[in-house]
Amino acid sequence: MTESASARTPLSPTSRSALTRYRDRAATDRAALDAILDAGLVCHLGVLLHGAPVVLPTTYGRDGDTLYLHGSTGAGNLRAALAAGVSVAVTHLDGIVYARSAMHFSMNYRSAVIHGRAVEVTDHEERLHGLRAVVEHAAPGSWDHVRPPTKKELAATTVLALDLTEASVKTRSGHPSDDAEDMTSQAWAGVLPVRQIFDAPIPSHDLAPGIDIPAHVSSRVDAPVPATP
Amino acid sequence: MTESASARTPLSPTSRSALTRYRDRAATDRAALDAILDAGLVCHLGVLLHGAPVVLPTTYGRDGDTLYLHGSTGAGNLRAALAAGVSVAVTHLDGIVYARSAMHFSMNYRSAVIHGRAVEVTDHEERLHGLRAVVEHAAPGSWDHVRPPTKKELAATTVLALDLTEASVKTRSGHPSDDAEDMTSQAWAGVLPVRQIFDAPIPSHDLAPGIDIPAHVSSRVDAPVPATP
Repeated sequence: MTESASARTPLSPTSRSALTRYRDRAATDRAALDAILDAGLVCHLGVLLHGAPVVLPTTYGRDGDTLYLHGSTGAGNLRAALAAGVSVAVTHLDGIVYARSAMHFSMNYRSAVIHGRAVEVTDHEERLHGLRAVVEHAAPGSWDHVRPPTKKELAATTVLALDLTEASVKTRSGHPSDDAEDMTSQAWAGVLPVRQIFDAPIPSHDLAPGIDIPAHVSSRVDAPVPATP
Repeated sequence: MTESASARTPLSPTSRSALTRYRDRAATDRAALDAILDAGLVCHLGVLLHGAPVVLPTTYGRDGDTLYLHGSTGAGNLRAALAAGVSVAVTHLDGIVYARSAMHFSMNYRSAVIHGRAVEVTDHEERLHGLRAVVEHAAPGSWDHVRPPTKKELAATTVLALDLTEASVKTRSGHPSDDAEDMTSQAWAGVLPVRQIFDAPIPSHDLAPGIDIPAHVSSRVDAPVPATP
């Protein structure tokens, strides 16, 4: 994600974003928010639909203090998101915490939750900018590699901008926190690390011969990529 | 997760859970819902708080047609969840779909979204049953391995039950879907697979000597994958 030159806003701990539990896990560092957002691939968008919350997974992009979302103009969910406040969560699971007692089992994670009003972007240039942010977030280096949106495609797409001012960050890391009286337990205690990886790219079935996997794709792979025949 | 012997309810495509877009991606197969829930580790819970949706990551467990959630009795979020309907999403990201045009970039995924009313479980045995489902979901084989909850711990814990009747499943898999006029593009098109793995367990810093990693933990570890340098 590209960074805006504007001054960065600190996290605002309002009654909604302040944590009611585990205040020691709250980080007021804006850099932590950006890091969590930038490392994520999918967010969970909460909107109000017919008076009830609805949570939907979707992609996103960030530029400075703005989170961009997009969707089809035909999607009722995004239209509903404009009418009320939205909530966006990005979560990374880092480990399963095995404790010596059932109620101390936990997860190691990094989580960001943003609250605010999603505004429909109407300016042509900012719409392109927002869509570029979303595509580049999911697939860095791709926007300039592929055909840009046509007028017709743009007309069928809603771009939303959400300010990152009101957000909270929660993280847990490290070992289990067991009670003193359980320390003589013979149960194994520790962390099972969880990680998201990219495997070797799979070329499209209809890819023309002679088109190699470009560096902006192959460089993301965690496991070794098999040599091209 | 254990299966109940009760008859399984098919997915109910109400106006809220029916998809407004991509109807071809909706699967009305109840088995698909269960598979997505059982393979997940974290869900995103949407609740209504002060009139606005709030999305929070949390753990869960399933038994038959019931999804169990738990939290501290001091957590305002779970109390709010009792007052209004909730939405719970579980999402697996399977790949990033690289297309030949920006607007055809997509994700391969499996996603379940449940709508309904979360009911606080008050019966002692069902509370234990629900907590067991949550712990066993995150860490199979652990409940009988560790100290069970005390009366004091139980008093500090809220257990919620959510019926799985109203739910929708969305999935995307396979190759990019490019426009015919883009097939002469020299852009690479294909899928970058994404996967969540378990790395080698890390024993707690205060684990007594001689306690080996039990099979119910070590059996979850995926084959070693080199981390990105």
